[in-house]
Amino acid sequence: MKTKLAIFCVLALALGSICSALAIAQAPDPLPSWNDGKTKQAIIEFVEKVTTAGAPDFVPPAERIATFDNDGALWAEQPMYFQLAFALDRVKALAPEHPEWQGKEPFASLLKGDLKGALAGGEKAILEIVMATHAGMTTEEFEEIVTEWIASAKHPKTGKLYTEMVYQPMLELLAYLRSNGFKTFIVSGGGIEFMRPWTEKVYGIPPEQVVGSSIKTKYELRDGKPVLARLPELNFIDDKAGKPVGIHQYIGRRPIAAFGNSDGDLQMLQWTTAGKGARFALIVHHTDGDREWAYDRNSAVGRLDKALDEAKEKGWTVVDMKNDWKTVFP
Amino acid sequence: MKTKLAIFCVLALALGSICSALAIAQAPDPLPSWNDGKTKQAIIEFVEKVTTAGAPDFVPPAERIATFDNDGALWAEQPMYFQLAFALDRVKALAPEHPEWQGKEPFASLLKGDLKGALAGGEKAILEIVMATHAGMTTEEFEEIVTEWIASAKHPKTGKLYTEMVYQPMLELLAYLRSNGFKTFIVSGGGIEFMRPWTEKVYGIPPEQVVGSSIKTKYELRDGKPVLARLPELNFIDDKAGKPVGIHQYIGRRPIAAFGNSDGDLQMLQWTTAGKGARFALIVHHTDGDREWAYDRNSAVGRLDKALDEAKEKGWTVVDMKNDWKTVFP
Repeated sequence: MKTKLAIFCVLALALGSICSALAIAQAPDPLPSWNDGKTKQAIIEFVEKVTTAGAPDFVPPAERIATFDNDGALWAEQPMYFQLAFALDRVKALAPEHPEWQGKEPFASLLKGDLKGALAGGEKAILEIVMATHAGMTTEEFEEIVTEWIASAKHPKTGKLYTEMVYQPMLELLAYLRSNGFKTFIVSGGGIEFMRPWTEKVYGIPPEQVVGSSIKTKYELRDGKPVLARLPELNFIDDKAGKPVGIHQYIGRRPIAAFGNSDGDLQMLQWTTAGKGARFALIVHHTDGDREWAYDRNSAVGRLDKALDEAKEKGWTVVDMKNDWKTVFP
Repeated sequence: MKTKLAIFCVLALALGSICSALAIAQAPDPLPSWNDGKTKQAIIEFVEKVTTAGAPDFVPPAERIATFDNDGALWAEQPMYFQLAFALDRVKALAPEHPEWQGKEPFASLLKGDLKGALAGGEKAILEIVMATHAGMTTEEFEEIVTEWIASAKHPKTGKLYTEMVYQPMLELLAYLRSNGFKTFIVSGGGIEFMRPWTEKVYGIPPEQVVGSSIKTKYELRDGKPVLARLPELNFIDDKAGKPVGIHQYIGRRPIAAFGNSDGDLQMLQWTTAGKGARFALIVHHTDGDREWAYDRNSAVGRLDKALDEAKEKGWTVVDMKNDWKTVFP
């Protein structure tokens, strides 16, 4: 009886496998929002060569690490980084508790609606805004604040939720890589705790696969209850030369594929492609002024200059958003 | 034809599932090296209640995060942390390149075989030994050094490879949790890059699920080739109150189960159990002087004092190594 059951089970499982294989053979286009052409072809060729068992470029699933920049690569970043919009909204929300801000830059200009004046103070001004809005609460409180904002704040130009301004072709790319055994990570200059509350829902990327910039936290017992207090002190800047550092620190192995859109991603792309075996580097070039924004070498946000030159020199894949993408937003 | 194929496939897949379910129902004991008793029962009860769909304590797979200390919890730590043995071996190996060490503490004492004298300098001495042996090379070079050492160095008392001094019951526990949808992480005071080269092979824990102490690294182009240089500067100490900070920084969500053995794990256990819903905290109590070592409140290595008191007070699970474990090493 036992033998018969075993034979029966083996047969059933085998037939199931054949059916799964047939389903794969008949699978529809995994990247329907990408126009056919050399960009889409380059992506598919890379994925096929690293996932074909026995092929010279085969990579075991555990090593199929793919890293994605966020701002300008997975979601839009104009006319300002969305996290800056969050910080400005927080300054307005917190202003009643900070009467001193009325006479103190960069807050005074901000509260008068003069963004340019506020940002005239450069990095120091931005840092002050970030610390005033991102520190001084527990990690759980900050998560709630972000969750509430991301569910309600609207983009000034499109009127959409910010999470509706993610790129449909990139969502398909993330899913395509994962269905081929890749583990997808975000490696962003943005705040790690600003992204984690929503990346799983929006991108299918869980918190433990998000790398970003951070401030320090401190463990404390408050009335016997453990909390992590967010301190007004920088911990790590995950941008430019910080990206390979962040990748090494958080992931501990080199990606085989990396996706970015600006000079902030250059070192990540260099680090990724310098590894042994098949590697893939892709840059999203914002060329679509009608459906999105067109900008590169002279943009204050998401400047793409050195990385565009190096992409040409090294044969990295450059997405021409206008011609390569059928749709931009979902 | 297509419909018939579809019906056939659905049937085959369904039968396959039934067979898989039958196989699970007949599964052997998942923790064979654990003696039956209240410790083993507590583990199994927790896993069953968080994985039973529809039960009040059910936790979705994505949130089944389990964190493990390494030294004294997954592998032994006597008579000294194994990473210290590595550092001492490195001092000896590097001594020919550093003639000045002959007249400089803590190196002079070390090279004479006087460990106690070397460590008389306390934390400062240890830090000097760590920096002299862990910094000053690229990340790839360090990985090679660790890989070579871990494959050949032997424990002074048992004569075993250090990776043979992992705890068999804990290996079974890791596998049991993973087979129940848990994601297992290491959260250790040890060096993150000292562990990552071998944790996947030994524990089934990939590099990206290892959290530990670290020194800073810097991205550089050397002859056009990108490297990460290891700098003699502390980055993060993942011990005591640093453990919840490390968990938050790397994993970004609170574990539902945590496993440690010393006061260095106390805050991790507090942080884990303070979350909402079912939580599990376990301490490995080293009570077996015959098969391993017996130590707790007065040990310089892996002191277990405050955490033992708090475990009793809060009803955390305490492993009595002597009575709960059938075997210690594989």
